[in-house]
Amino acid sequence: MSDSSPKTSLPAWLAQVSQMVDEALDDLMPSGSATPQALHMAMRYSVFPGGKRLRPALAVAAFEAVCGPRATADAAPGGRHALAIRAGAAVELIHCYSLIHDDLPCMDDDDMRRGRPSCHRAYGEAIALLAGDALLTLAFESLALPELAEAAGAHRAGLLVGELARAAGSLGMAGGQALELAISEQSWSGQLTSAADAVRRMESMKTGRLFEAAARMGGIVGGASEPEMDELSRLAQSFGLAFQIRDDIEDATAQDSGSGRLTAVSVWGLEGARVRFDSSVAEAKRCADLFGEAGFKLRNLIDLISFA
Amino acid sequence: MSDSSPKTSLPAWLAQVSQMVDEALDDLMPSGSATPQALHMAMRYSVFPGGKRLRPALAVAAFEAVCGPRATADAAPGGRHALAIRAGAAVELIHCYSLIHDDLPCMDDDDMRRGRPSCHRAYGEAIALLAGDALLTLAFESLALPELAEAAGAHRAGLLVGELARAAGSLGMAGGQALELAISEQSWSGQLTSAADAVRRMESMKTGRLFEAAARMGGIVGGASEPEMDELSRLAQSFGLAFQIRDDIEDATAQDSGSGRLTAVSVWGLEGARVRFDSSVAEAKRCADLFGEAGFKLRNLIDLISFA
Repeated sequence: MSDSSPKTSLPAWLAQVSQMVDEALDDLMPSGSATPQALHMAMRYSVFPGGKRLRPALAVAAFEAVCGPRATADAAPGGRHALAIRAGAAVELIHCYSLIHDDLPCMDDDDMRRGRPSCHRAYGEAIALLAGDALLTLAFESLALPELAEAAGAHRAGLLVGELARAAGSLGMAGGQALELAISEQSWSGQLTSAADAVRRMESMKTGRLFEAAARMGGIVGGASEPEMDELSRLAQSFGLAFQIRDDIEDATAQDSGSGRLTAVSVWGLEGARVRFDSSVAEAKRCADLFGEAGFKLRNLIDLISFA
Repeated sequence: MSDSSPKTSLPAWLAQVSQMVDEALDDLMPSGSATPQALHMAMRYSVFPGGKRLRPALAVAAFEAVCGPRATADAAPGGRHALAIRAGAAVELIHCYSLIHDDLPCMDDDDMRRGRPSCHRAYGEAIALLAGDALLTLAFESLALPELAEAAGAHRAGLLVGELARAAGSLGMAGGQALELAISEQSWSGQLTSAADAVRRMESMKTGRLFEAAARMGGIVGGASEPEMDELSRLAQSFGLAFQIRDDIEDATAQDSGSGRLTAVSVWGLEGARVRFDSSVAEAKRCADLFGEAGFKLRNLIDLISFA
């Protein structure tokens, strides 16, 4: 059960959310002994143990921002708080699938992920490919479970599917990855007017769009109004941009990668990237403030990426 | 508009359905000039021109079998016949994505598909990977479009998403592909009791399950009863099995591939495979007969794979 009162510290709340998300993910996935075993083991290997589960946390924080004090009353099993967790879990499945496919030799060719062999290094390329496909598919299956449609209402469940699919597809995350390829091959120039435009567009699609879906899906579960949904979009896009720029700055200062890549740092310089980071954080906070007291968790999450 | 009267010849009906499915797919996909261009061009390259659109045809035939004479009355734009087409188009997107990923070097490593270079030979591996991911995602987006939820009802739209996701996921098509890998590496023995069991299970998951989803999705749109849904499942699994065995027999007699692969022919021999083909066709026809006059198109489709 999540204690959503403002008094809960952020680390404690994040740990609570992360545990509930992990339980939901565990429920959703066939066991590693189910046929075909290699596939199910590879799926679980790529989902557990997870990172900070930042996207699900954003979904739950958005839900709480929209619901205010009612969020705690909804914390019963089958209640709307549990639905926000399920929505967050679906976003996390999309994130996990994208990491598997991103690590493949034909993409970034990464041998390591979260301190251990990447999925294809552990299970082979073919199984890694299929594990990504299956996690992507499972994300949508999870939003079509009868129990979810019953608790959320079929209409709202459909909105969740549409939101997640648009965010993950060719005009969202997958499109952002393709745009990154085009940028690295310098073949974006016919499509976009400048390097800065290309990077902005790529970051918004590749990273921002899935954060946006997480926040909006929390909003959908909470019954957000149209203006509230708009603010959640703006907040999450700014949040995702800040998150991405922080990554770029860390890479650039560690000098461990990114040479030659077009990133916020290579386009705007270290100082320019820091300015963009600060303005993105400020914009995200401005949006969070519009939810008053109930926006507490959103503000906390923004602080987390600011100081981590 | 589809003329669903029994008098329409099968080739004419198939051509009608195929054209309507192509129009639906064209509507769904961003144009090839939308950013990122390479991704959208690769998606369209893999979907057009299509094959026989057999899975969508099965969805529409199942819809007509369930609705009977009412099917024609539903043929208006936005009517249920159009919904059956949309459901079939979603299944076709899953089929097209699976072909792209199947052809990749880490899977079957096929250079050619439908008489021209496979997607990764034409667009590179990375874009092919992403095009498959994006088509898979688009299949679910297409079932969550507001216009579909409005015409079908949100509850029914949710059933379509769940049906397609289960059929495509780790216990369906993707699982069947993983099982095929395990069989080719002879690592199935801990999971299944015999080679025959392994091949049966693999064919049912890899091929049968998506045909089953097509038929059941047609049934869902048509408002099939539970017993009707069960018969559609049985029919489509038998249909898919016959389809797969025919492929295996053709490969074996052409001796152009499959050497060493575990297939219906390698397990049961050419004669045994023919016996299994005949019994699958007979079982599919028995199920089609249960729909009486309205099962006409289903019987025709079964004849198509029998004599082609």
